[in-house]
Amino acid sequence: MTTEREAVAVGFDEWVGTLSEWVAIPSVSADPDRHADVGASAEFLAESLRRTGFPEVEVQKSGPYQPAVFAHWPSGDPDAVRVLVYGHHDVQPADGDQRWTRPPFRPQVIDDVLYGRGASDDKGNIAAHLLGLTAHLQATARSAPAVDLTLLVEGEEESGSPHIADLLADLGDKLAADVIVVSDTGIFDAETPSMCVGMRGLVACELQVHGPDVDLHSGVFGGAVPNPITELARLLAAMHDDHGHIAIPGFYDGVIEPTESDRQRTRALPFDEHSWITGPAASRAAWGEPGYSALERIGSRPTAEINGIYGGYTGPGSKTIVPTDGYAKLSFRLVGRQDPAAVRRAVTDFFAAGVTAGLTVEVTWEGNGVRPLYTDLDHPATAAAQRALGAAFDTGTVLLTREGGSGPEAELVEAIGAPMVFLGVMTQDDQIHAPNEHAPLPLLRKGCEAIAHLWRDLAGLGKQGLVKIDG
Amino acid sequence: MTTEREAVAVGFDEWVGTLSEWVAIPSVSADPDRHADVGASAEFLAESLRRTGFPEVEVQKSGPYQPAVFAHWPSGDPDAVRVLVYGHHDVQPADGDQRWTRPPFRPQVIDDVLYGRGASDDKGNIAAHLLGLTAHLQATARSAPAVDLTLLVEGEEESGSPHIADLLADLGDKLAADVIVVSDTGIFDAETPSMCVGMRGLVACELQVHGPDVDLHSGVFGGAVPNPITELARLLAAMHDDHGHIAIPGFYDGVIEPTESDRQRTRALPFDEHSWITGPAASRAAWGEPGYSALERIGSRPTAEINGIYGGYTGPGSKTIVPTDGYAKLSFRLVGRQDPAAVRRAVTDFFAAGVTAGLTVEVTWEGNGVRPLYTDLDHPATAAAQRALGAAFDTGTVLLTREGGSGPEAELVEAIGAPMVFLGVMTQDDQIHAPNEHAPLPLLRKGCEAIAHLWRDLAGLGKQGLVKIDG
Repeated sequence: MTTEREAVAVGFDEWVGTLSEWVAIPSVSADPDRHADVGASAEFLAESLRRTGFPEVEVQKSGPYQPAVFAHWPSGDPDAVRVLVYGHHDVQPADGDQRWTRPPFRPQVIDDVLYGRGASDDKGNIAAHLLGLTAHLQATARSAPAVDLTLLVEGEEESGSPHIADLLADLGDKLAADVIVVSDTGIFDAETPSMCVGMRGLVACELQVHGPDVDLHSGVFGGAVPNPITELARLLAAMHDDHGHIAIPGFYDGVIEPTESDRQRTRALPFDEHSWITGPAASRAAWGEPGYSALERIGSRPTAEINGIYGGYTGPGSKTIVPTDGYAKLSFRLVGRQDPAAVRRAVTDFFAAGVTAGLTVEVTWEGNGVRPLYTDLDHPATAAAQRALGAAFDTGTVLLTREGGSGPEAELVEAIGAPMVFLGVMTQDDQIHAPNEHAPLPLLRKGCEAIAHLWRDLAGLGKQGLVKIDG
Repeated sequence: MTTEREAVAVGFDEWVGTLSEWVAIPSVSADPDRHADVGASAEFLAESLRRTGFPEVEVQKSGPYQPAVFAHWPSGDPDAVRVLVYGHHDVQPADGDQRWTRPPFRPQVIDDVLYGRGASDDKGNIAAHLLGLTAHLQATARSAPAVDLTLLVEGEEESGSPHIADLLADLGDKLAADVIVVSDTGIFDAETPSMCVGMRGLVACELQVHGPDVDLHSGVFGGAVPNPITELARLLAAMHDDHGHIAIPGFYDGVIEPTESDRQRTRALPFDEHSWITGPAASRAAWGEPGYSALERIGSRPTAEINGIYGGYTGPGSKTIVPTDGYAKLSFRLVGRQDPAAVRRAVTDFFAAGVTAGLTVEVTWEGNGVRPLYTDLDHPATAAAQRALGAAFDTGTVLLTREGGSGPEAELVEAIGAPMVFLGVMTQDDQIHAPNEHAPLPLLRKGCEAIAHLWRDLAGLGKQGLVKIDG
């Protein structure tokens, strides 16, 4: 009988070809010019799922959301554990950035690494479910999975999942599950198998400061009228105090201080701050709220981040104007029980209250944002996912991490009413959201295998085994 | 015998045609793609000067500067007053701005107003010397001007005249003069003839704050590495205190407080702050250093202005990154005896000393900048220029103003060693440096006439009459 590992090895090269074809589709949800590609990406995944054997596959595109993929493969056993897998097939922009040394949407394998936008986040980790399921079927000699398997792969996660509620409502009971498996996170590093047990929430907006209705000559008017970019800088600078603490009134409502066991889990990770700063962070010094380690700052602290800024004259040479407007793109990562709606109000109020007379501010939010999410560490599904990763990585030690990224996971948990575990194999070296995104094939191979192990493990536990014993 | 006014009236329509052809040449010195047009603009002016009768006309293009026009017309009398006229033929960018309701380089006359980039600043005011001189010759029935007339019209004033020193050195003694007349300023308003007696200095730079070497995922890294745009905002906000006073150490060295007679001259102007703010300033509230009126803020106080800002993701939707860099284009207006070199050092030191660990700043200056300049109010040339304007506007009252703009005037005065007066007819309504720049033709007509009056007046004074009696 073939093992999960052997089955993955047999199918892997063909699978890399399929993944490469998928990565070649520029499914950038943030860019209206790429929305047709988001549709093409959904169709590609749907067809791949059908070829894998899923009897029920649909591209969901009737709602306000960009096309999402729903797939279902019943196990045949009415008592089987019901699993819902979540991920996304849209990708971050790769906007004409000269720093891509390989074209983002012409994927290439070089030295066992797949380069391309989405190779890691999230096409690589979602495609792992194709080969993972095939390996599960071969290793268990089944014609249908041992768990009742549903996949939901959305098309606008990189835009903040603004319509996830509509998508969940449209699918309704078809998403019912005993456990949710999210494949959109990573491991600590290639040598340290680990599992994510927390993600930050997110709200994002554009701030506009409006000044004079026309560009003014900075000699004729400068010094006597307010400059909207000076004001933009002032408002943005006021978001933090001198120590990196966020100074927006009410912003920290709901933030939970790390417990001693949280801190112990963080300290257990083989983290070298200097290597991290100069390596994956491509920086020269750490920064952040005093009293927290870099990992705590990412896993347990909220942020107020400026993602982009523009306004006035930005062409060659100089142009001595008082410009009409300044704009900044902002995003805020949330933790603990921070409420996206409350943060949106606090930020809007902060800018509105702080603006200098004669200037106006407008804050435009991107959707409603998403809440933070924390896995229940005492739930049997958490241990099962740890075992599956351990089996793929040949180790009994799978550490637990809190990641700083965000997704619509909290909304899923609320809508489905099931516990959630994270199974993904991205690493901090993958340059996700950056030029030259890539994924090491050996890690993707282990990701496929871990999925196969997990379906066997969860089926073995059965519904009864997935009931958490409180106390 | 024809008068100056009659002569201007006869030639005016043809002159407007010539000016329009000139305005159609997009001589944007700041844009390398337009440099050929700067050359074409110089040739156009040179040819127009030859047609007017100047016996000696040269396009200066052998130095590092963009093409400048030199022209000389001796009066024939070796004792004639030598006049050097200065202005520029390059224009501000009109960068793809949707707010131009008429194409910037297809000039049109509508309701006696000429629309187009440069119609006012400075082609309209320099072209006035063509018709002004013709009128002078006709009104005085001379075949050569009554003053020894030299013109220097440079091609990179809107870029801060970075090579004016080279240009002046190349022309050397050919620029010798008893009085310098600058035609690159305006009058208080269409109903209030006035003369500029002060201009601010200027230095301009680009500030870059560099952070991580690649864009980072704001979830994976945010909160633990310094964000260069947050830092850019912090550094820019720190340029001013909460009251609009500039907080850069050493910046105010050399600033001279307005004297009581300065303040009286300012108060004599029919200035309504509210009308000015909501009218030409297209704003909703005044702003500036406490203790100074709007006119004093413009005429007598320095500025630290942000002309443009950019960095990170500025495309559609959102992109949750910690960006690599933030950039701002800054310019500083100088007054009194502020020294451009000292201000450049103070600003560079301010940013370098203020930057957060792990980030780097780079400040790139646009040339050396220019000093402030003040006309000697007691010099006979100043009274002559006032009389010439008064004659053109049919009034004995020509008020004195300090303008907030800047040019290489101080360097000219230093190099030539002659007093300087300003004769120009721009107004604050002209939208110079802004979309829809325009010039009212009735004012340009008066500008032509004032020039004709001035040459007659200065010739009448003679060299002896231009000697200032001190005490």
